[in-house]
Amino acid sequence: MDLACVLTLFLQDLVSSCVNPSIMDIKIGASTWPPQASEDYIAKCLKKDREGTSIQLGFRISGFQIYGNKESGFWKADKQFIKSFSTEDVRLVLRKFVSSNASADLDSDPDCAFASVVYGGSSGILAQLLELKAWFEDQTIFHFYSCSVLVMYEKELTVEGRSSGAAVKLVDFAHVVEGVGVIDHNFLGGLCSLIKFISEILTTPYEYPAKTCPHDTEKNRLCSDNSAME
Amino acid sequence: MDLACVLTLFLQDLVSSCVNPSIMDIKIGASTWPPQASEDYIAKCLKKDREGTSIQLGFRISGFQIYGNKESGFWKADKQFIKSFSTEDVRLVLRKFVSSNASADLDSDPDCAFASVVYGGSSGILAQLLELKAWFEDQTIFHFYSCSVLVMYEKELTVEGRSSGAAVKLVDFAHVVEGVGVIDHNFLGGLCSLIKFISEILTTPYEYPAKTCPHDTEKNRLCSDNSAME
Repeated sequence: MDLACVLTLFLQDLVSSCVNPSIMDIKIGASTWPPQASEDYIAKCLKKDREGTSIQLGFRISGFQIYGNKESGFWKADKQFIKSFSTEDVRLVLRKFVSSNASADLDSDPDCAFASVVYGGSSGILAQLLELKAWFEDQTIFHFYSCSVLVMYEKELTVEGRSSGAAVKLVDFAHVVEGVGVIDHNFLGGLCSLIKFISEILTTPYEYPAKTCPHDTEKNRLCSDNSAME
Repeated sequence: MDLACVLTLFLQDLVSSCVNPSIMDIKIGASTWPPQASEDYIAKCLKKDREGTSIQLGFRISGFQIYGNKESGFWKADKQFIKSFSTEDVRLVLRKFVSSNASADLDSDPDCAFASVVYGGSSGILAQLLELKAWFEDQTIFHFYSCSVLVMYEKELTVEGRSSGAAVKLVDFAHVVEGVGVIDHNFLGGLCSLIKFISEILTTPYEYPAKTCPHDTEKNRLCSDNSAME
């Protein structure tokens, strides 16, 4: 079956109805290269997968914007800075994403004030990721390489006690190949790893590993505009 | 935490209580190399993972013995032959494993006569694999590279209507590394893929892809002894 026969592409502006969305782009899968790719392409991807957290965690954060407030605007980290993320950095940023005190100061301890509303609940991020997981455990038509989940919510709405608008969207289909009757174990494994990280934020207290934090805060960039992620 | 502090190794002869066990060794994980391994080791493993079905399926069959009857004894396939397995070959052998008419003749259609008893049921292979999956979704202490699940049962007991002795055992711990708070997404993804293959045998009819079968039956070897797998 040719993918061209069954795929219809709908383009959607995922944040068109949002005012100041906090968004995180998480590239799922330990491997970002399809098995059929050229040797050069595989070598290039493998290098990136090993340099980032993909091999270790089964996913890597590839971009984010976290809304602070009207004065501070968005916190967007520099791409090079994100590329150097360790496991602990990923853990910390996933906490900052749902904190009222998120800032570029990576030495500050996130309060995870919105975790239960954004990550938890019957329509929260975790529930949506678990729904996606159930689909990946069964579907054998597509394999998604170098594909991301966008995780987003509206902090201002959350603060006001309205629906957070928490949403998970699958994006970046440039390297989707046919599954030929096999599940996408690469995506599924990484997704399960992300689910574990999110679950732990909801269930376990956090001790900020100050002594082991490798950050250089000068690498960060605090923005005050509302533009899309770079 | 050093693995040496928490690991105690018990050696067990897994088939000591068996008479004529049918056994399959399935190496789990798309990648058989730990991220910390040397460049040479990674290159060597990656080559094998790509040549076999590991990258494609998230697991590969690395050995088996299937008991026929007193006259025919065990069917054991040649190692080189197993290395050349395609996805369809894996699907076929997993069916032959639970068939009354399993033989080295790969053109014969397996009847899957013991599938419901061996793979299915509350204590069958699938139930045990699902239990293992639940553990891998949660545990973050160990990562198992190049590790196998042994799947086994006793055909003679099954034919007699007694307990099949269906069992799943985790073996080969030469490349176990610390999980440092992250699930083993590589093993988990491959395990989910194997679970899907087994589930399909229990739930969907099979059409033997005679035209696409790439086998050279001369590569097979039919043994009539009861020795352990080579």
